Amino acid sequence: MRVNSLVTTVGCLASAVAGVAVNPLPAPRSIAWGTSGPISIPQNVAVNLPRNAIVTDAWERAWNSIKQLKWVPQATEAPISSYQPFPTAAPTSSASSVPSSSAAAGLSDLSADLQAEVDESYTLVLNSNSSTLEITANTTWGALHAFTTLQQIIVWNNGLVIEQPVQIEDSPLYPWRGIMIDTGRNFITVPKIKEQIDGMALSKLNILHWHLDDSQSWPVEMSSYPQMIKDAYSPSQTFSHGDLKDVIEYARARGVRVVPEVDMPGHSAAGWQQVDPSIVSCAHSWWSNDNWPYHTAVEPTPGQLDPLNNKTYGVVSKVYNELSGIFTDHFFHVGGDELQTNCYNFSSYVQNYLAADPSRTYNDVTQYWVDHAFPIFKKIANRKLLIWEDLVLNDPHAPNVPTEGLLVQSWNNGLGNINNLTDLGYDVLVSSSDFMYLDCGYGGFVTNDPRYNVQSNPDAATGLANFNYGGNGGSWCAPYKTWQRIYDYDFTTNLTDAQAAHIKGAVAPLWSEQVDDTVVSGKMWPRAAALAELVWSGNKDPKTGKKRTTLMTQRILNFREYLVANGVQAAPLVPKYCLQHPHSCDLYYDQTAVN
Amino acid sequence: MRVNSLVTTVGCLASAVAGVAVNPLPAPRSIAWGTSGPISIPQNVAVNLPRNAIVTDAWERAWNSIKQLKWVPQATEAPISSYQPFPTAAPTSSASSVPSSSAAAGLSDLSADLQAEVDESYTLVLNSNSSTLEITANTTWGALHAFTTLQQIIVWNNGLVIEQPVQIEDSPLYPWRGIMIDTGRNFITVPKIKEQIDGMALSKLNILHWHLDDSQSWPVEMSSYPQMIKDAYSPSQTFSHGDLKDVIEYARARGVRVVPEVDMPGHSAAGWQQVDPSIVSCAHSWWSNDNWPYHTAVEPTPGQLDPLNNKTYGVVSKVYNELSGIFTDHFFHVGGDELQTNCYNFSSYVQNYLAADPSRTYNDVTQYWVDHAFPIFKKIANRKLLIWEDLVLNDPHAPNVPTEGLLVQSWNNGLGNINNLTDLGYDVLVSSSDFMYLDCGYGGFVTNDPRYNVQSNPDAATGLANFNYGGNGGSWCAPYKTWQRIYDYDFTTNLTDAQAAHIKGAVAPLWSEQVDDTVVSGKMWPRAAALAELVWSGNKDPKTGKKRTTLMTQRILNFREYLVANGVQAAPLVPKYCLQHPHSCDLYYDQTAVN
Repeated sequence: MRVNSLVTTVGCLASAVAGVAVNPLPAPRSIAWGTSGPISIPQNVAVNLPRNAIVTDAWERAWNSIKQLKWVPQATEAPISSYQPFPTAAPTSSASSVPSSSAAAGLSDLSADLQAEVDESYTLVLNSNSSTLEITANTTWGALHAFTTLQQIIVWNNGLVIEQPVQIEDSPLYPWRGIMIDTGRNFITVPKIKEQIDGMALSKLNILHWHLDDSQSWPVEMSSYPQMIKDAYSPSQTFSHGDLKDVIEYARARGVRVVPEVDMPGHSAAGWQQVDPSIVSCAHSWWSNDNWPYHTAVEPTPGQLDPLNNKTYGVVSKVYNELSGIFTDHFFHVGGDELQTNCYNFSSYVQNYLAADPSRTYNDVTQYWVDHAFPIFKKIANRKLLIWEDLVLNDPHAPNVPTEGLLVQSWNNGLGNINNLTDLGYDVLVSSSDFMYLDCGYGGFVTNDPRYNVQSNPDAATGLANFNYGGNGGSWCAPYKTWQRIYDYDFTTNLTDAQAAHIKGAVAPLWSEQVDDTVVSGKMWPRAAALAELVWSGNKDPKTGKKRTTLMTQRILNFREYLVANGVQAAPLVPKYCLQHPHSCDLYYDQTAVN
Repeated sequence: MRVNSLVTTVGCLASAVAGVAVNPLPAPRSIAWGTSGPISIPQNVAVNLPRNAIVTDAWERAWNSIKQLKWVPQATEAPISSYQPFPTAAPTSSASSVPSSSAAAGLSDLSADLQAEVDESYTLVLNSNSSTLEITANTTWGALHAFTTLQQIIVWNNGLVIEQPVQIEDSPLYPWRGIMIDTGRNFITVPKIKEQIDGMALSKLNILHWHLDDSQSWPVEMSSYPQMIKDAYSPSQTFSHGDLKDVIEYARARGVRVVPEVDMPGHSAAGWQQVDPSIVSCAHSWWSNDNWPYHTAVEPTPGQLDPLNNKTYGVVSKVYNELSGIFTDHFFHVGGDELQTNCYNFSSYVQNYLAADPSRTYNDVTQYWVDHAFPIFKKIANRKLLIWEDLVLNDPHAPNVPTEGLLVQSWNNGLGNINNLTDLGYDVLVSSSDFMYLDCGYGGFVTNDPRYNVQSNPDAATGLANFNYGGNGGSWCAPYKTWQRIYDYDFTTNLTDAQAAHIKGAVAPLWSEQVDDTVVSGKMWPRAAALAELVWSGNKDPKTGKKRTTLMTQRILNFREYLVANGVQAAPLVPKYCLQHPHSCDLYYDQTAVN
């Protein structure tokens, strides 16, 4: 693929600055800037694009954004200032280093579908002595990434310019890079979902993991069982087939795969219970965290599909097949997390199964689910499954979960579970809650909670953190994960090369107990952009191997402003002063403090 | 004041329900519902209002909201369900109790200005045998509160209705009830400030504490010193005099006082330094939290007015007098928090003052500020001052701060500092950070912070909370303050009656290091509504004296939906399931668990 004659005039501008202010996010794997000075970009460019609607539409969007925004970098990199000394001070300075590279060209394969592990690489070259900006990519999807890079490096300086000749050679470290939305706990409208996709495209994230439903609500209109939608929160808070296809199409046009999740057999009551109450266990039990021996869920409201009621599989099959006809991705997420054995105290099917053979345990119940549900799931052509790690690692779990055609999403116990899963031979998607759960730190949502009713610090003398003072405040996964926490995660630590090869990428979940349209974008962005760079080009300087978190600072601060300018309601990370005064808000004057 | 003929038809509707679904927030001090059934409200009502633009405008807004929203309560109160028993269970049930009262009438004083301690009481009576809804209030401002109550109790049920005859007698527990915005760390636009005021009016909050500037930026255009605005973040991120007056007028029309703050002498660099760099100390120092003995600020960026440079008082006087000509409230907040003595190592004036008499300390420097600045501040007619408690309690502090004409805002050490201040005879405004700081729990904003770069839990064995695991994650005042935490605060605990009489109310601050237009409403609301009820009618059932937090649940969940319907982008507190199933998301089945 080749974009010819994009640049029709070449030359230095009078007002040119010597350096380069732009700082695209994610940082390309390799970027080399020239020194001959800015190259102006005409408002009307001649482009030579392949005949491909996705590519031409993406180009139009990128070019319109460039023309309309007239973007001026809002946070630029610079060494930390020398400050007035206290009595003595010996400031050190450091400057950003740009890895060198050469341009490359590849052959276009326009037919490559947007599926797992598709080639997303691209090159972008603008030489000082050429009137052509050349973009090469092996696939449509690589070309789209090239355009979002181009969007970020063309800036306004008395006209559109690229600040210096440039050679970029770029491709992702990991093929799975995404965020998770949850429309089961609270509804999120299609326009707000599209806003998330806009942010993903700009940051080169390619997976929208869509947790469609949960025990609380079923928002998806189903032809096979129209009654399921009775458990939507309201008639307007639903997704028609048309809505789903609209989102999938919108995402595909931006290089984003939509991977649906129907969490089974746990987290299942709404919708299913309308089809047949007998296939759902404990839906009307008290969740009973105030009486732990009886608890049926770790959060309200309870409900799990009954693996021992054979009617379950008929309903599951119809629901799954209908959704598989809508969602185009080869992967389908079938859940598998947080099975509560107490829930099955309400199931005569399960109790009879256990009573029939005293050697049977809840692991056998779980294995029964896998043995009966997975064959249904696998019947779809090219189908591969995504599951939560619980099905393999939790108590209870299924002792025999196949590794083939399966990707396991890890959310507990950080490096420990990643090590366990890859050691067992599973391909792994990293979603470690201690680093990547974007919903942490907002306190608890459960009500009638006497733990908040504390008038003074019980540990004032010791300074130890407790519930209301320095502690989690009701958020099980507190504290809040800052962008630095996300970016600093080295999730391959201590893995063998063979284990590391099993890691396919990472997804940052935003569970929606306290999320709907009003706050989803501010909770997601710009933190998801820290993940985006982590899995695209990593958190380390490619030359020195040192963490580059400190040099990521101005990049993500600028990118947040860029998101807002492009209509994504990202939250501010710092006082604007910090954007305007590079590194003035650092904790350490020593620019190598994070290493 | 009397609103006559508001209701022109009286009678039971066929579709009437026996109970009452509405649940106005804040709960009135006294509300008594009848039993004769719903009373329909005609779309065209005849109103008899006094000739007062504020009252008639407020009525128009309330009536338009009623007509256009056709509000149906989104979360209604009901006893917790009886669930399917586990093996055994003995659920208890409880219902909301409505304190009884009789209606009263008062005389209108339309001339009463919106100033501290103005009468805000009102009554609202609709008898079953009358075609008139009668509102009485002693002042304009009480009438406005009556209208927002009326807005919340007229609902749509095949037409506008009030569900039962009702008698409300209402007045606030505390005269100061508010929120604090900070336009110094990040800018907030006038429309977004007005959105906060809309939420305040609906929840009967009456104080907008406006922290105008800080060391990072000065957003206010000044006639006396036009150069100060150079330290706005951008030419568009400024407030003209017209903008300020617009906000004050908008607030006043909704019964909200705007109390400005110019924080002095600490938190001062931007703006001031443009007038005369010599009146600002340490503005260009490294904040040096990485080398604590040299630290000049507790967060970037440093800067304090120099109390020993006499030029300071000339500039302070002009700035203060100009702003006093714009802001109409008798109170002006003059700051006084977080003075850093190290900052004055950069001041030859302070160093010479200390060297001239070895007995002098930084308390004397602080007293010098009070002795020279307060006379300037007090020169304005009717002027009273609001200060942060630091000026009285911190190290350093001024040993001799007068109690007269002064209100002291307490933010540290919860009940301890409230006790200290009231014991010293100061009037107190409660803003305890452990309960009311709405910016807590979002991690830290400072960059180049190696504390996040931790790959596994160093305290996994002990389970103790640490920085990244269960601890504060960089937020000094973590955890996040949930609505329950705010509502449960009994800030008069252990005070004598004389001390308690010094408490004038409470203000919940939202510091803006990580806040601007994109997220301000979601961080402020609906949590500020929990404070609103706490200081309007308290957190206890007036009959039993028991905490009513659990019965506040459905009220605040409904109110959040009501805020969103009225254009205030409040965050969701729970999965919508919890709204629709009262108390299903309680932590304890026992409805008296919070007491």
